[in-house]
Amino acid sequence: MTITMYDLAGAEAERRFSPFCWRARMALAHKGLAVETVPWRFTEKDKLPQPNAGRVPVIVDGGRVVHDSTAIAEYLDERYPDQPSLFACGIGRGLTRFVQNWTETVVQPGLVRLVVLDIHRHLGPQDQAYFRADREKRFGTTLEDFVRDREARLPAFRASLDPLRRTVERQDFVSGSAPAYADYIVFGAFQWARAISDFELLAEGDPVRAWRGRMLDLFDGLARRAPAYGS
Amino acid sequence: MTITMYDLAGAEAERRFSPFCWRARMALAHKGLAVETVPWRFTEKDKLPQPNAGRVPVIVDGGRVVHDSTAIAEYLDERYPDQPSLFACGIGRGLTRFVQNWTETVVQPGLVRLVVLDIHRHLGPQDQAYFRADREKRFGTTLEDFVRDREARLPAFRASLDPLRRTVERQDFVSGSAPAYADYIVFGAFQWARAISDFELLAEGDPVRAWRGRMLDLFDGLARRAPAYGS
Repeated sequence: MTITMYDLAGAEAERRFSPFCWRARMALAHKGLAVETVPWRFTEKDKLPQPNAGRVPVIVDGGRVVHDSTAIAEYLDERYPDQPSLFACGIGRGLTRFVQNWTETVVQPGLVRLVVLDIHRHLGPQDQAYFRADREKRFGTTLEDFVRDREARLPAFRASLDPLRRTVERQDFVSGSAPAYADYIVFGAFQWARAISDFELLAEGDPVRAWRGRMLDLFDGLARRAPAYGS
Repeated sequence: MTITMYDLAGAEAERRFSPFCWRARMALAHKGLAVETVPWRFTEKDKLPQPNAGRVPVIVDGGRVVHDSTAIAEYLDERYPDQPSLFACGIGRGLTRFVQNWTETVVQPGLVRLVVLDIHRHLGPQDQAYFRADREKRFGTTLEDFVRDREARLPAFRASLDPLRRTVERQDFVSGSAPAYADYIVFGAFQWARAISDFELLAEGDPVRAWRGRMLDLFDGLARRAPAYGS
């Protein structure tokens, strides 16, 4: 049975740019599950299935509604134990949380200060108004000011990726010789950026860029085929 | 049969302060293996068993000599598969490398700028001369200058621990509900610092401090009973 996934979209319905939705999308592919995505916009809060937390990703699997990317990954691994695991063991699950917390305290906050204005540019007028008001309140400044001098911040952002860089220099994936959920978490951040921004985050020759390429190749190029910029 | 481990020591033979040796020490305890440690100093290069890379930890298990903490952990898990695993699965092993790379690019470089002069104070005269010359060449400055204004750097160091903080706030150990090798890697850095420095790295109430306390309690307080400072 096909799973339905509500997926954050830009003005252009095929442009999907939520890092959390990309985690879920890659997890579904990892489990080999068929999925139909429904493009969803920030201002369509009432179009989500119940129970409705007003955020995506949300999946509907048969009658079951699961929201939040972490809960979705855990649900999928438990519900489909015969498919390749996202975590493989308790230590795998525990350490995936560490990678998630690194991604959410280091990578994503760094990225948002590089590309948030590019997100805004890819939204329809109604979402633009919502997004600007919501984020400017959260950041305490205009979107334009928040990303100003992003070129100057790029070296520090790249340096903050050192733990990832050293890992994928020495093994093909964050999770070892094959990708698993921790890879999808980190990749979600990069796919978010490349879906809406032509600002090149990674230097040529950076092992992180080679890893991103391997991630883009997975599942017959699932993420590479999605509307996005650059390499 | 008792395993022998060469362990970095200060002027006082029982003061053990290498982060890498603490990884190995905790890994041996995790595997429930009996160990006899041999105190070793920086300037005793020729006192290590062959093959001799001039560094510790080195273990001797029967006739087998293994050096390098990572190689030791892998050796122990393979040689003693019936004892509790340090990694549990391939994803656990892969993600442990990420935690190691985070520890070695973020935590340890941050710590050394806070406590390197305290290391020097705990060495005998011959090791002091070696250590000062070696580290001052590496850092390109005096040990005193390298740690100057460490109070001013403390907030940034604490902030750099956010991925760890968020993880151990939500689960007891980095590796999940029970400790594993990734915990010993991170803990090794903190035990290194507390073995030779009374400079308190962690604020009261910091979840990282509570986690460190749980680590100190493991194996009948193995690390807590070792000569060290503070909590």
